[in-house]
Amino acid sequence: MNVDGKKYRTIWLAEDGASVEIIDQTRFPFAFETVTLRTMEDAAHAIRVMQVRGAPLIGATAAYGVALAMRADPSDDSLDAACSALLQTRPTAVNLQWALDRARRSLIPVPAENRMEAAYILANDICDEDIAINMAIGMHGMELIAAISSTKREGEPVNILTHCNAGWLATVDWGTATAPIYMSHEGGIPVHVWVDETRPRNQGAFLTAWELGHHGVPHTVIVDNAGGHLMQHGEVDIVITGTDRTTATGDVCNKIGTYLKALAAKDNNVPFYVALPSPTIDFSLSDGVREIPIEERGAEEVSRMTGRAQSGSIETIDIVAEGSDVGNPAFDVTPARLVTGLITERGVLEASRQAIAAAFPERVRASA
Amino acid sequence: MNVDGKKYRTIWLAEDGASVEIIDQTRFPFAFETVTLRTMEDAAHAIRVMQVRGAPLIGATAAYGVALAMRADPSDDSLDAACSALLQTRPTAVNLQWALDRARRSLIPVPAENRMEAAYILANDICDEDIAINMAIGMHGMELIAAISSTKREGEPVNILTHCNAGWLATVDWGTATAPIYMSHEGGIPVHVWVDETRPRNQGAFLTAWELGHHGVPHTVIVDNAGGHLMQHGEVDIVITGTDRTTATGDVCNKIGTYLKALAAKDNNVPFYVALPSPTIDFSLSDGVREIPIEERGAEEVSRMTGRAQSGSIETIDIVAEGSDVGNPAFDVTPARLVTGLITERGVLEASRQAIAAAFPERVRASA
Repeated sequence: MNVDGKKYRTIWLAEDGASVEIIDQTRFPFAFETVTLRTMEDAAHAIRVMQVRGAPLIGATAAYGVALAMRADPSDDSLDAACSALLQTRPTAVNLQWALDRARRSLIPVPAENRMEAAYILANDICDEDIAINMAIGMHGMELIAAISSTKREGEPVNILTHCNAGWLATVDWGTATAPIYMSHEGGIPVHVWVDETRPRNQGAFLTAWELGHHGVPHTVIVDNAGGHLMQHGEVDIVITGTDRTTATGDVCNKIGTYLKALAAKDNNVPFYVALPSPTIDFSLSDGVREIPIEERGAEEVSRMTGRAQSGSIETIDIVAEGSDVGNPAFDVTPARLVTGLITERGVLEASRQAIAAAFPERVRASA
Repeated sequence: MNVDGKKYRTIWLAEDGASVEIIDQTRFPFAFETVTLRTMEDAAHAIRVMQVRGAPLIGATAAYGVALAMRADPSDDSLDAACSALLQTRPTAVNLQWALDRARRSLIPVPAENRMEAAYILANDICDEDIAINMAIGMHGMELIAAISSTKREGEPVNILTHCNAGWLATVDWGTATAPIYMSHEGGIPVHVWVDETRPRNQGAFLTAWELGHHGVPHTVIVDNAGGHLMQHGEVDIVITGTDRTTATGDVCNKIGTYLKALAAKDNNVPFYVALPSPTIDFSLSDGVREIPIEERGAEEVSRMTGRAQSGSIETIDIVAEGSDVGNPAFDVTPARLVTGLITERGVLEASRQAIAAAFPERVRASA
């Protein structure tokens, strides 16, 4: 998307046709800087220190990491070593494993002299596929927004509430929950986004607000507590969030707090949609609340906050009474009964086993 | 309540029998300091800069401010000037107006030579009445907690979730939502409190966590997003919050985000109680969502955060992407249908017009 009028992806091939450039996401929202990855180790470092984040972008960066390794040494040993080193950077990232398995499987049969070129093509393909999926999600979601817009007065915006960052910064471009928003905005449908701060890591106030602002999409940051009140007063027309994991029955595991917004949407007849690329559907799961283990993360995410001091320096401060215990569950599960629909690359589906299976029959077969 | 083993109120007469001592609440949670009020102007300053906060405590401080004025000069003119100056400190605080009206009405008929003594007695009475109300709330609420405790294994705590600070720091002692908690704890019922951080002003992480911790009540601070997930997994037995304003029908206007917790409680069959001194009931209101205007507060409450830097200094940092709009509704309304009961000084009531009117017939008559 745009950053102050200039088009960006989160990762792209540099002008030299060999190195790779990324946006350094550890600096958000206080600085916008790009980093050049010249070696596989640079790519591994970028994933490890979270200069790149979000499942699709991590996968893309790993694929480019393999390409950089093949540039230095296209041997089988080098390929194995690169895949192994990259996988160690964030061992629990499903998309990282997927991208590396795919790279290894594609490149092993290729003669060493052609591997570098093949690896770059593959990394580029992975990026383009992510963009294609997100654009398809965007088109389907835009139809929902357009339908709401048609009930409004001329120029009156559609108010969309989102939680966390399922934005272009978490993908190669467009994002998932944000794709319908950007596409509507580009298509001339007036939109305004309520951006949940998203405690404890503030991805809404730090990332979603930054990317919407720099693309020029009208938006307002609110605390996570505020959404219910806004819905009671008719100030939210539609909720669109992302998801980390979706069950075969349409339960949605997403950033902590998503469930509370779904409850408020239900109570106020506000449609609640979840945007997702179909790979996040786990066909082995049928009861999200019971079956999905929720990661308990470190207390310091809650008890400390990082931001810019008046002096301009970046400071970390303590914000919980000393000596208090802190709990930090990172995700929650929104049951399918609260989900109006799933916005996928194959269209908007009811959050039900039947509808999901009908849209992705080959995935059901593969999981059987 | 206790601060590290020593009993405190939030306001008390100093040993000299003339000046008044308060806890400086602007320093929480990073420092515990008391301030001596020697003049009416000191009391006015304490209210204005929010060294004291919470409706009952503001009223008590104003009453002591009148006593300090009467000490300096017990004339009618001095009484009028003191009431006028104190009212200016926070003109929208209903309890401030109430305490000053009461002080003026009581003292005007008293001969000047006896006014100082009468004013101190009145201020002391106002404090004792607040404590009596809160203790009655505590006793009634403790019965609810005891009933839950009786269903638990020996030693297993009752898990109570609370939002914001309806604690002893907002009153003279005991608090409202916290009174049942402290009374249960004192009575040997094992309790554990989930403390919502309560963005944007962090009264949970700053004040509730501080007061529970220093009294020795087990508790865990969580982000506002987490409560729904905990309720889904059976980790909350009861929710108890306070309220700023309650309708004759039992709708509850409280800190922003309360409504979301009430929705989650309903969805998970967790009882949701609201503790309140009956003066917060406004018998002129019957539809909270439609009739109660919600204050929109300054953006900087959301976009800035104050805490302790690693150097030990207190720093204020920016925590929202630059240039983004910020919205900050301060309260929301929880409809009576989501409220299991109201814990008042006259017992636990159904949140309905009938039950409230039956418990407070004289208030209904007065408002007719």
